[in-house]
Amino acid sequence: MTQYQQAQQGCITPAMRAAAQSEGVDPQNIVTEIAAGRAVIPCNPAHTALKPYVVGRAFRTKVNANIGRSPERSDDGSEVRKMQIALNAGADCLMDLSVGNDLSSIRQTLLAACPVPFGTVPVYEAVSRLNGESLKLTPELLLDVIKTQAEEGVDFMTLHAGLLRSHVDLAAKRLLGIVSRGGALLANWMVTHQRENPFYEVWDEIMDICRQHDVTVSLGDGLRPGCIDDASDAAQFAELDVLGELVQSCRNAGVQVMVEGPGHVPFNEIQMNMERQQQVCDGAAFYVLGPVVTDIAPGYDHITSAIGATAAAFHGASLLCYVTPAEHLALPCDEDVHAGVIAYRIAAHAADVARNLPGARERDRAISQARAQFDWNRQFELALDPDTARHRYQSARKHDAGDDYCTMCGKDFCAIRNSREAVGR
Amino acid sequence: MTQYQQAQQGCITPAMRAAAQSEGVDPQNIVTEIAAGRAVIPCNPAHTALKPYVVGRAFRTKVNANIGRSPERSDDGSEVRKMQIALNAGADCLMDLSVGNDLSSIRQTLLAACPVPFGTVPVYEAVSRLNGESLKLTPELLLDVIKTQAEEGVDFMTLHAGLLRSHVDLAAKRLLGIVSRGGALLANWMVTHQRENPFYEVWDEIMDICRQHDVTVSLGDGLRPGCIDDASDAAQFAELDVLGELVQSCRNAGVQVMVEGPGHVPFNEIQMNMERQQQVCDGAAFYVLGPVVTDIAPGYDHITSAIGATAAAFHGASLLCYVTPAEHLALPCDEDVHAGVIAYRIAAHAADVARNLPGARERDRAISQARAQFDWNRQFELALDPDTARHRYQSARKHDAGDDYCTMCGKDFCAIRNSREAVGR
Repeated sequence: MTQYQQAQQGCITPAMRAAAQSEGVDPQNIVTEIAAGRAVIPCNPAHTALKPYVVGRAFRTKVNANIGRSPERSDDGSEVRKMQIALNAGADCLMDLSVGNDLSSIRQTLLAACPVPFGTVPVYEAVSRLNGESLKLTPELLLDVIKTQAEEGVDFMTLHAGLLRSHVDLAAKRLLGIVSRGGALLANWMVTHQRENPFYEVWDEIMDICRQHDVTVSLGDGLRPGCIDDASDAAQFAELDVLGELVQSCRNAGVQVMVEGPGHVPFNEIQMNMERQQQVCDGAAFYVLGPVVTDIAPGYDHITSAIGATAAAFHGASLLCYVTPAEHLALPCDEDVHAGVIAYRIAAHAADVARNLPGARERDRAISQARAQFDWNRQFELALDPDTARHRYQSARKHDAGDDYCTMCGKDFCAIRNSREAVGR
Repeated sequence: MTQYQQAQQGCITPAMRAAAQSEGVDPQNIVTEIAAGRAVIPCNPAHTALKPYVVGRAFRTKVNANIGRSPERSDDGSEVRKMQIALNAGADCLMDLSVGNDLSSIRQTLLAACPVPFGTVPVYEAVSRLNGESLKLTPELLLDVIKTQAEEGVDFMTLHAGLLRSHVDLAAKRLLGIVSRGGALLANWMVTHQRENPFYEVWDEIMDICRQHDVTVSLGDGLRPGCIDDASDAAQFAELDVLGELVQSCRNAGVQVMVEGPGHVPFNEIQMNMERQQQVCDGAAFYVLGPVVTDIAPGYDHITSAIGATAAAFHGASLLCYVTPAEHLALPCDEDVHAGVIAYRIAAHAADVARNLPGARERDRAISQARAQFDWNRQFELALDPDTARHRYQSARKHDAGDDYCTMCGKDFCAIRNSREAVGR
């Protein structure tokens, strides 16, 4: 039985207990949220290295890091290294987006060492098995890939099942068309073969596999807007309506489900997007990519999107998929993975602070106390990225400098020193 | 006569014409906004290198970069270099926050080469002249510094005149007390000498100097919160009320005025802060520092604060003072200045896109068109930081790769390629 099915029967599973402990909440909260379909615990029993987490609006906002090689960039070991970098930086879950050869071997290596929920996009492996010839895709191949991955222990899978053939015409009106890798492949397949989305033909079988292995379905948004101009358009919302139906379909099948979201969205439309998704998808956990709030900053899209992600998490998202500085330009390198995770932990935490999630502000209070006391070590320990903070402080500091100021203002002009004098501390 | 006085008489000055041209608006808009006190053109006639800009809610959101040496870090030439880096990255105005010796010489060198509005914090020079012995400060010394700087051509000056002696007790209740350099110095002075804020004793003379040289007063927020815990507290809003009175005092004296704001503010309180300032200060242009939306990311405060700055600019701010990755740790280095300006141009532009400022979305549209057409050169030209974007793309790309994909997805999986096939472009 899936976590969803057990929650509906009121059972508290070991995974729910573990998630409750890591969250610092009563296990009953977890049961309630999962039973209502507002939270998921992606935890395939075959993923033995997993320490389960809960993803949902009632809990700490989580961060996903995408890793995975592209055909242009692949060397053995690099994705394992990136996984470790993402985990060290604090990623709550990981997706392996590898395409190309030998995907099963990479995935098994990663899964064996991965303590967090692990996700994939099965259509990537399906098309990779066809050496990139995506038009040869069949529903049966998709099903076979999903089955293989489920048996290997994948915890959640992006399925682009909401993108219908009729939506492609709507996307044709866009400036940037379809920017989801999976969405574009499927759209091309549907248009060429004049067939409906291939997930439909085998949907019941997919549900059986996901229920059997408790794979959480992450409903992909193949029509997420790829630029500000395309945001919140008819194509996006037509697909969203189908995603809302698919949420019910998953729930009816006893399968855990979350929903993916945009993309590129101007800052003023983020709240509306979050509220509309929550309404259309009946409160299912929302897993957003960014959103990027302006198109003009390639090289800095970890920042453009951390801005959007903070607003998204404040207004309704539960899981934030990072965007790295390499977005729109290249496959992320090690430094990009680190920069992306840190930017997103900032966004996630800033949103949790803003929605006054119990306990969220304690770390801010503690680091600020350390700041007031010039306790630099404590400040670094509490920092999101201790090494970077420590290095910046120490490398700028003169050898004989005191601990009660920094090079920003110097001793006489240090506001905290002068403030202490003024307020008598 | 100041720009404010001339606007009130309905005159369109050369500075207003220049600002209108750079903004792409009718000069009459500029006159109206300045006459109403909702916009300023910081333009001291003695600053001959200046190309005037307008700062106000009706116009493009502007970005300020702070440069200036600290006693711990000073070598000749480095601040000139930082100024150039900030200008190249697109800073709209600059503040020289130097403390230590020989400030006039640094300032004159910078001013002679600075084409954007140039600001200072006179209390820094006053205390520097006293070799850091801030308790020896006198109102007369402050006045002398303001006069000297006005004669040299400084366009705007931060005056921490809203911080009253009675506010210090409110700040004593805080976790982090007073984190404004100028505010902490003045608070310590007021408490030690049991005197009121020294700006008051010479306020009329200050107004005379600012009117004579058309120096724009930037009312400093000495009590800006320095951590999430201190945000939106009694100390902050007590000072804000005084700032509101000082806005009227400046206007009555015919002096241009804007108002500085926080600081550290949780994301959910930014809108309220912006609206309250606009109300209390009768629509005077709001010049905000960040705000930083969480305290836990030293080393990344350009990001924590760009998140806050976007929300601030969306909800009411006109000018954003950058925060660099060095904040809370060290004096910014060259790379920090660049990173800070870029992060803030992202925030400013994202806000302008969000508030649908005429013309703001055109650049997003153009770069996205270039993206759709695989016109990489055009994409880099339109990028906020062309060099970084170009370098990231080119260094990842294989020698023999085509132009119609990047290393992120590779050729077969490129969404834009597949989308073109699907939608027939």
